Amino acid sequence: MAKLMEDEVFRAFTTYAAVVIVKMLLMAPLTAFYRFSRGAFANEEDVATKSAEERKKQLRTHPDVERVRRCHQNDLENIVPFVVLGLLYALTGPELSAALLHFRLFAGSRIFHTVSYVCPLPQPCRALSWMLGMLTTLSMAYRVLSSVLVL
Amino acid sequence: MAKLMEDEVFRAFTTYAAVVIVKMLLMAPLTAFYRFSRGAFANEEDVATKSAEERKKQLRTHPDVERVRRCHQNDLENIVPFVVLGLLYALTGPELSAALLHFRLFAGSRIFHTVSYVCPLPQPCRALSWMLGMLTTLSMAYRVLSSVLVL
Amino acid sequence: MAKLMEDEVFRAFTTYAAVVIVKMLLMAPLTAFYRFSRGAFANEEDVATKSAEERKKQLRTHPDVERVRRCHQNDLENIVPFVVLGLLYALTGPELSAALLHFRLFAGSRIFHTVSYVCPLPQPCRALSWMLGMLTTLSMAYRVLSSVLVL
Repeated sequence: MAKLMEDEVFRAFTTYAAVVIVKMLLMAPLTAFYRFSRGAFANEEDVATKSAEERKKQLRTHPDVERVRRCHQNDLENIVPFVVLGLLYALTGPELSAALLHFRLFAGSRIFHTVSYVCPLPQPCRALSWMLGMLTTLSMAYRVLSSVLVL
Repeated sequence: MAKLMEDEVFRAFTTYAAVVIVKMLLMAPLTAFYRFSRGAFANEEDVATKSAEERKKQLRTHPDVERVRRCHQNDLENIVPFVVLGLLYALTGPELSAALLHFRLFAGSRIFHTVSYVCPLPQPCRALSWMLGMLTTLSMAYRVLSSVLVL
Repeated sequence: MAKLMEDEVFRAFTTYAAVVIVKMLLMAPLTAFYRFSRGAFANEEDVATKSAEERKKQLRTHPDVERVRRCHQNDLENIVPFVVLGLLYALTGPELSAALLHFRLFAGSRIFHTVSYVCPLPQPCRALSWMLGMLTTLSMAYRVLSSVLVL
């Protein structure tokens, strides 16, 4: 195994990064599930085996599908920055306890964000979980930039 | 060169990650090509030099442009997780043959996915290539989490 | 701190990657700002506290919001590949001056791209800044693939 993986902080980063990325990946099957159960497709070839009438009816957007897609998009916009900044952050050698706090807060906030978005829970559930995730990421960015700055 | 790059698995990861990321990047010029050839733009400043009538007509969506954009979006949703999990996977020190199998399957599935989406080929070409890519990524995630778990 | 961070090129990469990722992250609050100031929301729970009439009126898209969202999407499509290829590029051990040139050109082009998109500036400001960023990324991809190729 690579030397990096002997570092406890890097192992913690690896774990949480894998968890949130897998969570993000699973939004795709969820979208597929909603597309099939709601009968709302985006491509003609997806409804090619159906009758002409059905075909026309099912080439549409559906609010439930759009909701899952917005949630997926929000994951892309937040989880990818977390993974990048988390990797760099882990390499700056933070305390394990501080790193775990960041990683746990972020992972928890994103799981709660998904639940808030897909169910949906009343606001400000979604807004607060989104904000917590963003603040965690910005805090890691601050640590990265303040310890390694080469402009 | 950094020590990491002396590892054969990491070099293989680097190669395939660069290939799929460049493939994803090239979706942008492809979108631009469709926007110009179909005359379908999203921004007013993009049609500013045209006549008033043309301007109004070309500020629209076009099915071919939307298709390429969905393909690009699908790349973002699948290739980025592959790169992140592939990096962590390469650091857990897998067998070179196992790693190459994962990387090749993924890269092949995504190239075939793009062809299936843009042409388009009849289903289930696109669905199967998407699923193969996702299973490869999940298999790497499993390996990462089972060898490095610090919660 | 990890050994990697002792490498000047890697520190430079870390700095510029953090800067462009934070820039990308800040598109989200900017979108929120436009959503509130323009009164254009995407989810029913976001307007739940408003009167029935207001609720209906504010569940809509607004050109200014869509513009910021397209800019954010373009960031995702370009900054994420830069970060991935930049990381691999930094590990191939380039000259510090060459690396800095790539990183600075990219960061500058993306900041100018955002200004061009959100203001908006007349074309070809946005097109040229986008193209410069893409060429920088492709140049790094070329260096990565030509120095580390394991197919």
